[in-house]
Amino acid sequence: MEETKKRVVYLDTANATYVNREVLQEMMPTFNSCYGNPDSIHSVGRTARELVEIAKRRIAMAISAEPREIYFTSGVAEANNWAILGLARANKSKGNHVIVSKVEDKSILLACKQLEKEGFEVSYIGCDENGVVSLAQLMGSIKQNTILVSVNVANGEVGTIQNLNAIARTVKEKDIIFHCDASWALGNMPLDVKSIPIDAMTLASDNIYGPKGVAGLYLKKSVEIESFILGEGGKRPDHMNVPAVVGFGKAVELATKEIMVSSHKTKLVRDYLYKSIKEKIENVSLNGHQYQRIANNLNITIDCVDAEALMYMLDEEGICASVCGTRLEPSETLIAMKRTPEQIYSSIRFTVARNVTREDVDYVVEKMVDMVKKLREISPLRKSSKEAK
Amino acid sequence: MEETKKRVVYLDTANATYVNREVLQEMMPTFNSCYGNPDSIHSVGRTARELVEIAKRRIAMAISAEPREIYFTSGVAEANNWAILGLARANKSKGNHVIVSKVEDKSILLACKQLEKEGFEVSYIGCDENGVVSLAQLMGSIKQNTILVSVNVANGEVGTIQNLNAIARTVKEKDIIFHCDASWALGNMPLDVKSIPIDAMTLASDNIYGPKGVAGLYLKKSVEIESFILGEGGKRPDHMNVPAVVGFGKAVELATKEIMVSSHKTKLVRDYLYKSIKEKIENVSLNGHQYQRIANNLNITIDCVDAEALMYMLDEEGICASVCGTRLEPSETLIAMKRTPEQIYSSIRFTVARNVTREDVDYVVEKMVDMVKKLREISPLRKSSKEAK
Repeated sequence: MEETKKRVVYLDTANATYVNREVLQEMMPTFNSCYGNPDSIHSVGRTARELVEIAKRRIAMAISAEPREIYFTSGVAEANNWAILGLARANKSKGNHVIVSKVEDKSILLACKQLEKEGFEVSYIGCDENGVVSLAQLMGSIKQNTILVSVNVANGEVGTIQNLNAIARTVKEKDIIFHCDASWALGNMPLDVKSIPIDAMTLASDNIYGPKGVAGLYLKKSVEIESFILGEGGKRPDHMNVPAVVGFGKAVELATKEIMVSSHKTKLVRDYLYKSIKEKIENVSLNGHQYQRIANNLNITIDCVDAEALMYMLDEEGICASVCGTRLEPSETLIAMKRTPEQIYSSIRFTVARNVTREDVDYVVEKMVDMVKKLREISPLRKSSKEAK
Repeated sequence: MEETKKRVVYLDTANATYVNREVLQEMMPTFNSCYGNPDSIHSVGRTARELVEIAKRRIAMAISAEPREIYFTSGVAEANNWAILGLARANKSKGNHVIVSKVEDKSILLACKQLEKEGFEVSYIGCDENGVVSLAQLMGSIKQNTILVSVNVANGEVGTIQNLNAIARTVKEKDIIFHCDASWALGNMPLDVKSIPIDAMTLASDNIYGPKGVAGLYLKKSVEIESFILGEGGKRPDHMNVPAVVGFGKAVELATKEIMVSSHKTKLVRDYLYKSIKEKIENVSLNGHQYQRIANNLNITIDCVDAEALMYMLDEEGICASVCGTRLEPSETLIAMKRTPEQIYSSIRFTVARNVTREDVDYVVEKMVDMVKKLREISPLRKSSKEAK
């Protein structure tokens, strides 16, 4: 007989989170009572505009910016595309050289490829084996015609937190525009654009228990940018996604208000997961920095295990995890961290949801032990690695 | 003493509609139970993917397309940007000439300006005084190197329905890609990409009582297009806005199922509004085609009346209307229709919501009579127009 309801343990917040109850409550009136277009001048539009202003204030407050410096996009990819393409194109008269790290989101790396097609030159900065971007290499790459540098605040695949302050100061000393993708950092660590010189910053909603379909771009008011979406109304045209914007504002407020408490709680569960795996399964190693990392991320290599197969087997037991990249397009972050193809093939990412308990972890690890055993028995890598020993 | 709750008559569905109750019901589980990323392979992701597939099927069914030919964007501007830029760029090897009408949405016209910067040549086709795009001029503009034609199915400012069938057949006879912006037509008239040769079509959600933050792009499977948003996953990357997509699917189903009934009901109220205005206010003329027009749109010129001022005065009485364009950037549609600057200055748009009654119309017209009188008394145009008579 089948079980009536399967246990689900969600370890994939990097891909999506459920929407916080308070966030959803805030969104509800925007669907059929405050449903206006905030660009409309009439009462129904004004009501919507006031709600958008509250969201802007909440997000601005969370990062010490001004409300008018907060823009909304449809997601992280659009925000990153806009930042890279829009900042570079608007400042082309000052130079055509852009610097990014190799451990950026694909939306940044592909935007850089687009810039190269348009005549820009892009330098890609490497990182150490923990995923920490090399400040020395960054400094060495800065040229007379460098107009834009973009480095993430924390990497979404392995969780490594970059040396934001040092990078930002180095870049701004040379009067170069600095963008950072903080979509994995928001809600995990304090972000302050007043004390750290940041010109543009990407902020995510759907991994901090906010709604999907929205992301933020902080744009310092003095910075020039070209629009990416073209149309009627403002720097980011089109009818605004008011429900998502309102929810995002609330989610940021909640995520940053209780940042120390909630991220510490998540960290404890995440650390317990790693400790349990290490105790029960041998030849497991961490990807990313051991201490300088975001609270919910655990990316590990389990030697001689097909991580994709493991992910499918975990799914059979209701455990949701993810693998970064695919067989055909392996993770650029793990490549930059000098992982071998075999290590990448054996790497899996757990991003712990807030509702995951230590009991859930025990369940996950118990299941994993058997799976890893089975997968190692049939692994084509096993023999060769044994021989190597 | 102040009234406790002011009457609101919403005549601005062109800017936003409330979300239909059934649509919202369909969306609710996606916030905190089916909250996965549809690209995730695990159970939570699969559940979300199934909901997205239902939405694709519903939309495909409504326009006689295949589910895999339906793509989702953040809104109409992105869908139009993507269609124009993506289709032109992907087919550059075949030619560099693009044709659009002058009565397109700004997101299309600005995308064409961008194409011009990239070395494309764009022809802008005019229309008659009713806003009907000239088929003769379109035919005369087609050249050996024409690769793309884009003409709206119905214009959002004045409501005129174009001769879609004739235009599409003319274009496809020459084997040129045909895109149409159907964002004002969906829910107002039947759309069928099987019987009319359409390669790409923009579909809107937030004017058919669907959610904000989403729009659709139908892309015939044989047509090549470059991505516009750059990032991880598919032709339109980034985490999908599942709640909005699910709601959009339901909204399309509802809007097209009862298309004849609901659009007829709206049309009756709209016609009653026009008839009442004409009866009570003199020197009023219609903008757009008298018969060949979408059901909810009434765009009129009220001679010697500052339409913006009228809009503000209407708002004081809880009546929501809109003006197309601004003083500094007057409506390109009205310019193409050969309206004088004075006529444009005196043009106002009413787009009737489903919940508007004949009683509401009586209230609106009663208020308008006084307002128009006042505005005409102080109008700088009045004297000169009197003298002209």
